[in-house]
Amino acid sequence: MKEYVIGIDIGGTFTKYGFVDREGNIFGEGSSPTDIYDKVEDYLENLVKELKGGEKSLEGEYKIVGVGIGAPNGNFYNGTIEDAPNLKWKGIIPFARMVQKYYDAPVRLTNDANAAALGEKVYGGGQGIDNFIMITLGTGLGSGIIVNGDLVYGHDGFAGEIGHTNAVENGRQCGCGNRGCLETYVSAPGIKRTVFELLAHDSRGSDLANYSYNEMDSEMIYNAAKKDDPIALEAFEITGRTLGRKLADSVAHTSPKAIFLFGGLAKSGDYILKPTKKYLEEYVMGPFKNKVEIKPSQLMDKNVAVLGSSSLIWKDMA
Amino acid sequence: MKEYVIGIDIGGTFTKYGFVDREGNIFGEGSSPTDIYDKVEDYLENLVKELKGGEKSLEGEYKIVGVGIGAPNGNFYNGTIEDAPNLKWKGIIPFARMVQKYYDAPVRLTNDANAAALGEKVYGGGQGIDNFIMITLGTGLGSGIIVNGDLVYGHDGFAGEIGHTNAVENGRQCGCGNRGCLETYVSAPGIKRTVFELLAHDSRGSDLANYSYNEMDSEMIYNAAKKDDPIALEAFEITGRTLGRKLADSVAHTSPKAIFLFGGLAKSGDYILKPTKKYLEEYVMGPFKNKVEIKPSQLMDKNVAVLGSSSLIWKDMA
Repeated sequence: MKEYVIGIDIGGTFTKYGFVDREGNIFGEGSSPTDIYDKVEDYLENLVKELKGGEKSLEGEYKIVGVGIGAPNGNFYNGTIEDAPNLKWKGIIPFARMVQKYYDAPVRLTNDANAAALGEKVYGGGQGIDNFIMITLGTGLGSGIIVNGDLVYGHDGFAGEIGHTNAVENGRQCGCGNRGCLETYVSAPGIKRTVFELLAHDSRGSDLANYSYNEMDSEMIYNAAKKDDPIALEAFEITGRTLGRKLADSVAHTSPKAIFLFGGLAKSGDYILKPTKKYLEEYVMGPFKNKVEIKPSQLMDKNVAVLGSSSLIWKDMA
Repeated sequence: MKEYVIGIDIGGTFTKYGFVDREGNIFGEGSSPTDIYDKVEDYLENLVKELKGGEKSLEGEYKIVGVGIGAPNGNFYNGTIEDAPNLKWKGIIPFARMVQKYYDAPVRLTNDANAAALGEKVYGGGQGIDNFIMITLGTGLGSGIIVNGDLVYGHDGFAGEIGHTNAVENGRQCGCGNRGCLETYVSAPGIKRTVFELLAHDSRGSDLANYSYNEMDSEMIYNAAKKDDPIALEAFEITGRTLGRKLADSVAHTSPKAIFLFGGLAKSGDYILKPTKKYLEEYVMGPFKNKVEIKPSQLMDKNVAVLGSSSLIWKDMA
C-alpha cells in the first residue's frame, strides 16, 4: 500500500498543501485561502474539506501516515501557532492538536522557514550537509538553521529568526514591533522601501518612478534591473549588502557550509546573490573567509515548505 | 585506581592547567608562561615538564586517562590551533598531535571559549540546560554556543565567534583585521577604549583622567564606577548596551534559555549585567522577551576552561 504524508504550508494569504511520498514526489497539490477566515476553526474546516477532496486524486490503495505543517510562528515543541503577526488568529493556537482530530496519524508542526530548511536538507541542496542556513525571502525574511544535522529549535521552539536581528539602529518599523529588523530591508517589501528611499534621495531617472507604493512589487524592481535601471540596480546592491553583512554575523555563530536563498527575491539570481556574497566576505571574520557558499535553493520551483513539512514525519520513519 | 584528566587552558600570556577528577575537583593546579616562547616546540617541552612536576602532587595510585585542551582558534575537528591572533605561533599547528607524543591516552582540543561553555555545562550553571550561550570577557570576547545539549562546532570547527560579529559599521579596528567587531567594544580593552572616547568628548571630571592608555585596566574602571565616577558609569552603560543589542541577535539565532558571562569584566556584577539585560530586552524580538536569563558564570572563581577542557575527555567516558 502506498504511503503519503500530507504536507501543509500555511502562508499569510494562501495555504499550500500536497500529498508527499517517501521519495519527495508531491501529488494532489492544491492551495486554499488563509486570510478570508476570521476564525481558525472555520479555516481548518475548509482546509480539511479541500484535503479530503485532494485525496480523491490519489490512485490505488494508500494510507495517510502523518501530517506535517509549516506555519508562521509555529512552535515545534507544542504544536502551536503563537501570535503570528501576519495571521488573523491571535493568541496561542493549538493547531496540531486541532488537526489531530481529523487524522488518525502523527501530526507535527514547525515554523514555515524551519520546514523549508528541512525540505532543503532532505530533498534539496542540503542533502549530506550537516551545517547550513536556509533563508526564505518573501513578505518577510524567514530562516532555518541546521546544526549537527538537526534543526535548531532552541529553548522555546522559536530559534532561527534571523529576519528579526537588528540591521540598523532605530531603523525601519517592523511588523514585529521593533525597529531596524533585517527583514524590513531584505524581503519583497524591504527592497521596495529601499527603492522609495532612493527615489526620494536621488535625481537619476528611473522607470520605477511611475508606480505608487501600493502598485510596486519586487518583480517590477527585478525587471527594471534587467534593463539597467540605476535605481533598481542600486536597490539590489544595498539589499545584498545588508543581507551579506548580517549573514556574516550568522556565520560567526554557527559556521555553516552553505547558505541557501529561497523565494521571490532569490529568483532575481545574481542581482541579489553577487552583492550578498561580496559583502559577506567583506564583513566575515578571517577564518570563515571564502568558505561559505551562498546559492539559490535547489527546490526553487517546488514547494519546499510542503516538502519540508512532510519530512517532519518522514524523517522519523526511516 | 584514581583517574585524572589533564585540563589545559592556553591563554595569550599564561597557560593554566590542572588534574581534574571525574567529579570536577582540580588537583595540582599550575600556570606556565605562554608568550615567552617564540617556538611552539619549546613552549610544549616546558609545559610537559611542568605537568610531569605537577603529577608528583597527586596522591596514591592514579592514571592519566586523557588530555583536554582549550586554545585560542582551536579546531576541535583537527586538533589544530590555526592562526591565533594573540599567540606568537602562526600558521596551522597540529597541537593535539604534538601533545599526543607525550601521553598514551586520548588528546582533544577545542577553542578556549568552547571549553568554558562545556565547563559550565558539566560543572556549572549550565547543568541540565540544553540550549545556552557562554560569553567569556577578557582580552577578547569569546563565546561557546550549546544547542540541543552539544557544543556548536559548525562546518569547519570554528563556530561560536560572537566576539567577531559586527557591532558598528566602520567601527574600531579589531585584532582579527576587521572593523567594528563586538569585542572591540565589549572586553577589557573595549571598555577602556570607550572610557578614552568619553574622556575626549566629555568635560565632566573623572578620576580616570589621571591614567595613560597603557596604565589603565578594566579593574580601575570598575573601582571608579563603585565611587560613582560619571565616565566609568557611562562606559559600563555603553558596554552593556552594545553587548545587549548584539546578544539579542544571538537569541534570535539559537534561542538560549540562559546566557552566562565569565571573566574579568563579568566580575563587575550589576554594572555590566543590568545594562546588558535592559538593552537585550529592548532589542530582542517579541516572542523572546523576558525569557532569557543573563547571569554570571557559576564557576567564576574557578578555572572554567581547565574544567571544560577536561570534560572534552570525561564526557565520552560516562
